Amino acid sequence: MTMTELSYALDTLFILLSAALVMWMAAGFSMLEAGLVRTKNTTEILVKNILLYALACLCYFFIGYRLMYGETTISDYSPSAYLFFQMVFVATAMSIVSGAVAERMKLSMFLVFTLIMTSVIYPLVGSWTWGGGFLSEMGFVDFAGSGVVHMTGAAAALAGVMILGPRKGKYGHSGAIYPIPGANMPLATLGTLILWFGWLGFNGGSLLSIHTVENANAVANIFLNTNLSAAAGAVSAFAITRLIWRKADLTMILNGVLAGLVAITAEPAAATATSSVLIGTGAGALVVASIVLLDRLKIDDPVGAISVHGVAGLYGLICAVLTSVSASISVQLLGAAIIFLWVFSSSLLVWWFLARAFGIRLSMEHEYIGADISECGVEAYPEFVASKSR
Amino acid sequence: MTMTELSYALDTLFILLSAALVMWMAAGFSMLEAGLVRTKNTTEILVKNILLYALACLCYFFIGYRLMYGETTISDYSPSAYLFFQMVFVATAMSIVSGAVAERMKLSMFLVFTLIMTSVIYPLVGSWTWGGGFLSEMGFVDFAGSGVVHMTGAAAALAGVMILGPRKGKYGHSGAIYPIPGANMPLATLGTLILWFGWLGFNGGSLLSIHTVENANAVANIFLNTNLSAAAGAVSAFAITRLIWRKADLTMILNGVLAGLVAITAEPAAATATSSVLIGTGAGALVVASIVLLDRLKIDDPVGAISVHGVAGLYGLICAVLTSVSASISVQLLGAAIIFLWVFSSSLLVWWFLARAFGIRLSMEHEYIGADISECGVEAYPEFVASKSR
Amino acid sequence: MTMTELSYALDTLFILLSAALVMWMAAGFSMLEAGLVRTKNTTEILVKNILLYALACLCYFFIGYRLMYGETTISDYSPSAYLFFQMVFVATAMSIVSGAVAERMKLSMFLVFTLIMTSVIYPLVGSWTWGGGFLSEMGFVDFAGSGVVHMTGAAAALAGVMILGPRKGKYGHSGAIYPIPGANMPLATLGTLILWFGWLGFNGGSLLSIHTVENANAVANIFLNTNLSAAAGAVSAFAITRLIWRKADLTMILNGVLAGLVAITAEPAAATATSSVLIGTGAGALVVASIVLLDRLKIDDPVGAISVHGVAGLYGLICAVLTSVSASISVQLLGAAIIFLWVFSSSLLVWWFLARAFGIRLSMEHEYIGADISECGVEAYPEFVASKSR
Repeated sequence: MTMTELSYALDTLFILLSAALVMWMAAGFSMLEAGLVRTKNTTEILVKNILLYALACLCYFFIGYRLMYGETTISDYSPSAYLFFQMVFVATAMSIVSGAVAERMKLSMFLVFTLIMTSVIYPLVGSWTWGGGFLSEMGFVDFAGSGVVHMTGAAAALAGVMILGPRKGKYGHSGAIYPIPGANMPLATLGTLILWFGWLGFNGGSLLSIHTVENANAVANIFLNTNLSAAAGAVSAFAITRLIWRKADLTMILNGVLAGLVAITAEPAAATATSSVLIGTGAGALVVASIVLLDRLKIDDPVGAISVHGVAGLYGLICAVLTSVSASISVQLLGAAIIFLWVFSSSLLVWWFLARAFGIRLSMEHEYIGADISECGVEAYPEFVASKSR
Repeated sequence: MTMTELSYALDTLFILLSAALVMWMAAGFSMLEAGLVRTKNTTEILVKNILLYALACLCYFFIGYRLMYGETTISDYSPSAYLFFQMVFVATAMSIVSGAVAERMKLSMFLVFTLIMTSVIYPLVGSWTWGGGFLSEMGFVDFAGSGVVHMTGAAAALAGVMILGPRKGKYGHSGAIYPIPGANMPLATLGTLILWFGWLGFNGGSLLSIHTVENANAVANIFLNTNLSAAAGAVSAFAITRLIWRKADLTMILNGVLAGLVAITAEPAAATATSSVLIGTGAGALVVASIVLLDRLKIDDPVGAISVHGVAGLYGLICAVLTSVSASISVQLLGAAIIFLWVFSSSLLVWWFLARAFGIRLSMEHEYIGADISECGVEAYPEFVASKSR
Repeated sequence: MTMTELSYALDTLFILLSAALVMWMAAGFSMLEAGLVRTKNTTEILVKNILLYALACLCYFFIGYRLMYGETTISDYSPSAYLFFQMVFVATAMSIVSGAVAERMKLSMFLVFTLIMTSVIYPLVGSWTWGGGFLSEMGFVDFAGSGVVHMTGAAAALAGVMILGPRKGKYGHSGAIYPIPGANMPLATLGTLILWFGWLGFNGGSLLSIHTVENANAVANIFLNTNLSAAAGAVSAFAITRLIWRKADLTMILNGVLAGLVAITAEPAAATATSSVLIGTGAGALVVASIVLLDRLKIDDPVGAISVHGVAGLYGLICAVLTSVSASISVQLLGAAIIFLWVFSSSLLVWWFLARAFGIRLSMEHEYIGADISECGVEAYPEFVASKSR
């Protein structure tokens, strides 16, 4: 046994535990989305979340990983640990999509898109950045994936929502917007807290090494900054909703947390703790504005995923200029634009093709009775009386 | 401070965190079972889950551990860490039983069985295998407990279900089978994802060492393989239910995940990633068939625990022949048979004695009004209107 | 890379993962409290829990940490890891308060109190003990915070409850006490199991080092003892409620778990496993008695937080005399008295001032319709029909 062996083991343990936390984020997205849709679509969103995680792991294992990293040689920690860590990241990107297209998309078409997204669309973005491709050579900074993971997920989601259209009853004549409240607030809160917890592994593990004093300090800073940015996002979203609407809007506060998490993800290691608080504060405010704006634009995103992951993701990429010495604003914007254009246009093409060829939207009747009955044959809460047959 | 000290500390930390993840599986079983029973039996299944975990820890600490391991001397990591890791495994075995006998068994009799199972029945199985006894000397391969933990729990559950009989209203005349849907799908999904997360510690920690390159690689393979087998189990169970019934049956998908996890548990370290996918695929298919079959045989298992842990457990023991050079099919089958016969017959005797002496089944009236009112005096969801007084 | 570097990295990882587990306890308190209040106050208690966590982190980062530790120099592990670990502890103390004052306090006033508690009241207690102040110099023993965290939270909660008064409808004429059952037992159970899981990090991480054989053994003992005390608390609370009321009262069992956890927190490292079982057994009994007694005294604590954290916290400080050679009964009692007097009187003053100046209690009408509508504008379960308009 040598020191090198011990450091190999320590880094491997660190990566594995971080990956386990990211795997656990699958439960976070599941609960968040199950809490924010209506009861009649709850079983189906759970099915989508379990299957997208499972398919993401399999597709990435068989296809995506090689596309993203080629024949990388890893020697400082276990290659299997690295593969597992990368694998669970893909599922995160795909989880973003399921929330935005909830309550009206056919399960089968969602799964087909999952195959393409996790085998090709995401891995290509990854290869350009973390795989040593042209974006990384340009100096694009995206430590744990504000762009690579979160904006990527949001861009695919936006394309899906545009092809799909809003839920029936969401928008009325002459600009009326009808709120469709989520059915289960404790679940949505639980999901957010799971994500907060798991995100420590998402950002921390991205350093891929903890065995030196320098790296141990960097990982600790990442944990601290990630937590502070999320906390600031919560407070900022709360303050704004309270000031404007006189109410403490729980879903906005949850989205503030998530926006804080997404924003700090681009550069959680180099930022100071105080700047992390500022970044999170901005993210919390931004996400509230974005959710309101998208609703005005009739882009119907039941869980706010496009705002949380796309808008806060872009914002995080820009903030990295303030905290990282190696990031430049032009490269960050260019990188963001390239990622967005690739993911958005390729996704739009896939969604459009699927819509033309098979139809991606539930029938009017199925949407009305709910995806749980039409797609799964099982209600989420069969013994509970629903107050409104929406 | 020496290298030996550091490796002692690293392995201890690894075992403790793995054990914490297995402890967390208690929440997984609790939520899974609470989601799959009816509202009127929800509080009681939660009580059973908390108490079985607590009693398992105490009985194993005072009695079972010594029976299983005698006076083992441990020197490479903390003996207390080892004891804690073994302790939380016992609770897992017992959690399997609570699901299968749900909705009709007296709480008191369940707790009496828990005492015997965790003090004697399980520790003996453990002593024959992991304790260095005759099964391990025969060359029986069961890395983390497809047989020792999961088939053991399922065999005890099967004996209990046979003595107990099915729930009222489950089976009608001339072979009719009435589905009794679980009351809360998000909880069941959450429980499954908790188990998935915790299982990484269950299988990974079973190596009990991570401090060398070889062991670190083995642990990483275990994490990767465990995750891939679960993912494959989900997809496979989905594909089958979709093909046969045209619906995406969430509970079958969840059972597919769990079957994938159980099956890979017999040999997650030596298997390749691709063979893990194949093992999980088979497990997902098998569990669907087994659940349907047991229902036809009028073995009423509300959560599918016997299929998930027993059938997939046996299947995992057999698959170990394909992935481990040291496993032979005859020894695996013989070992499985011995474990099953011991646990099933001793459990049957205990259940039978309890049934004769005290009665293990709720009265018709108590079963009708539900165990929550009759056993706990507290409803699980007191403010919610139930749609059907089942 | 040197051995010192590796041990620095190992301890940092250990502290960070422990801190992550304590962060996760925020979800535990959220679910526990959301499960134990009525549906009409569920969204609001979730808002309080998210915001108190966020504000605790921010206030402690900007103000409390310096007050508690001055300009500490840390060299054996990452200073940021230490700051993050301390930060999440503050949130735990504050979470205790939110449960006790649930269902009748204005959100705004709760948040104002949070600012003061986490910036000043708690950090001063911390400075006297863990910050090297006069209580630690006196020989006061409180390893992970039975007093510093839990009794502190409970004392602040008690002061709040006394100023606030009981919920409408809780106490009738001539001593009648009306139970107000919690709306969601699975959530309360989930919350308790999250806390049990997280507490391993809470107590284990408090050693702040694992890199030697001695420390690794100590951490392992802490994990083992914490788990056994919680298990014993569950069994003991169950046995008592079953004997007295003939029913298995789930909320009492959950409080038994938590009381076992709180009690062992004062000295989990030096205690033997058997003494941990005894301490937990006592805690489980004590908390049942305390909850009944406080109810008779018309101190309305919807979740039992004052009994769980205050009474079991004091009891834990006393038990430390039995397990730690350095603890003396007089110093433990004196320390407990000083902490209680400081926290209770300063909190009482703050609550009283807020009550006089702004009013801390919801209006009768708002309490009647519920805090969800009046404070948040969003129902927790909008589609579910409530059986009683309480």
